[in-house]
Amino acid sequence: MTDNQQIFSGVLAPLLTPFADDGSVATDLYVEHAARVLDEGCTGIVPFGTTSEANSLSGPERMAGLEALVDAGIDPRIIMPGSGLCALPETIELTRHAVSLGCAGVLLLPPFYYKGVPDDGLFAAVAAVIEGVASDALKIYLYHIPPVAQVGYSCQLIQRLQGAFPGIVVGTKDSSGDWSNTAATLAALPGFGTFVGSEKFLLRNMQGGGVGCITATANIAAGPIRALYNNWDTSEAGALDAGVKSFREKLQSFPVIPAMKAVLAERLGEPRWRNMRPPLLPVAAREIQGLLQALVD
Amino acid sequence: MTDNQQIFSGVLAPLLTPFADDGSVATDLYVEHAARVLDEGCTGIVPFGTTSEANSLSGPERMAGLEALVDAGIDPRIIMPGSGLCALPETIELTRHAVSLGCAGVLLLPPFYYKGVPDDGLFAAVAAVIEGVASDALKIYLYHIPPVAQVGYSCQLIQRLQGAFPGIVVGTKDSSGDWSNTAATLAALPGFGTFVGSEKFLLRNMQGGGVGCITATANIAAGPIRALYNNWDTSEAGALDAGVKSFREKLQSFPVIPAMKAVLAERLGEPRWRNMRPPLLPVAAREIQGLLQALVD
Repeated sequence: MTDNQQIFSGVLAPLLTPFADDGSVATDLYVEHAARVLDEGCTGIVPFGTTSEANSLSGPERMAGLEALVDAGIDPRIIMPGSGLCALPETIELTRHAVSLGCAGVLLLPPFYYKGVPDDGLFAAVAAVIEGVASDALKIYLYHIPPVAQVGYSCQLIQRLQGAFPGIVVGTKDSSGDWSNTAATLAALPGFGTFVGSEKFLLRNMQGGGVGCITATANIAAGPIRALYNNWDTSEAGALDAGVKSFREKLQSFPVIPAMKAVLAERLGEPRWRNMRPPLLPVAAREIQGLLQALVD
Repeated sequence: MTDNQQIFSGVLAPLLTPFADDGSVATDLYVEHAARVLDEGCTGIVPFGTTSEANSLSGPERMAGLEALVDAGIDPRIIMPGSGLCALPETIELTRHAVSLGCAGVLLLPPFYYKGVPDDGLFAAVAAVIEGVASDALKIYLYHIPPVAQVGYSCQLIQRLQGAFPGIVVGTKDSSGDWSNTAATLAALPGFGTFVGSEKFLLRNMQGGGVGCITATANIAAGPIRALYNNWDTSEAGALDAGVKSFREKLQSFPVIPAMKAVLAERLGEPRWRNMRPPLLPVAAREIQGLLQALVD
């Protein structure tokens, strides 16, 4: 691996976005939360992932949120904001803004409104972002999450993009939930910055030459995942892997985003954490008792 | 039907968006095109539908485009811009802008990033738009296009929204391609402004109490569709219906959006019309010979 390809590694949290009661972003809670997940074991943060309700935020809200994190003293070299939208001018604007703040990379969703788009069209979209941002400091992680976005980066397309834009297209987050896809990416692109989207696959990803995971769970339970990352090649790995998988299973039996927000609301005694932005909806504390118990266990 | 529910009727074109060679919106061609489709038989226009590559345009591009149409003298009372995005603040901004220009209605996509969202979440999203725009002049047409957006308005949800916001939620565009869904909507909501998304269903929609169609085809062949609309309850309807269905079948055998742009490029001798914005891609003139021939026949 070259240095370029090790910009980010370890356990990154796609940061939850807290909302005030009037529906605006609660910046105070946001900055606190970023510091907390880093304190709990994250090696970096991903503002504006799927877990962040990012696509429910406006462009100005995203830019203000990112600025608040950097202003609060979080090193932009460990921040990988999501910046991929449906409309290229807006994707370029957000990506340029992230680069201008010193963020060491961006997590790029493909344009996701039109379905069944050929790889040539997605290639053209990524090329247009790179041309539009026009900065040597730009490092792109391709965000593959077909269960939600429906549109994704095939392994072949990732290879094409990495080949066409070496040193710019430096990694991917595979949230397909399909280990065979991650395995194919690892095999096709040794030295690429391959993250998995769940700690369930972290051990296998590390064994296969990947660099870590970007996982929702790290918003409320980063410690054990970081321990697995730190010890993936030790004799402790099996037990650590079983532990994080068990908790992940529990978490996934709840609606993940509102459930994690409800956990934070309970843990911090801060009811604003329960707020969601439509179309997602909050859950009540009573609905997540099993999850709270699992966190104590 | 009340007057409220007859704001729009007939044949509306989801306007194609032309791009200059540098990728920006070609406003000159855009305004010309709007005037042309109205001249060819459209009763109204829908800037920023799926056919418009709307989700590939930025918010400022949409607002500037709509202003250009109104500035060119097109009556805003026959303009129904698409204004639904994933992020509520941006949906509210575009919707408010459309209302401020005097547009008689908006076509509202649901927030479409998160999949499997419960109806309660989509209800909350529409309610937030209505509350955020806060104008008695707001009239919403719910845009149901599950083949593309994946997220849609169920018939039950449409009933709930119409019941909660009478005089504001006044219609729908059903682009499901599933006549049984349109039939259910017509049956559940007599007097509602129900458009179909294809002229294939126009006759049945009119027979069932609907108000017209909003169809891509109207960008290049509005005349025959308008003739069917005008004569749906006459003895000519059968032959007119067969004619528009036949042409629609032909059109659908091509990639609809780039094929129609290529038709306009050929017809007008204006190569800029061939331009597409990624992730969609242009087609060459030679690829659409069969379509050009069908337009002559």
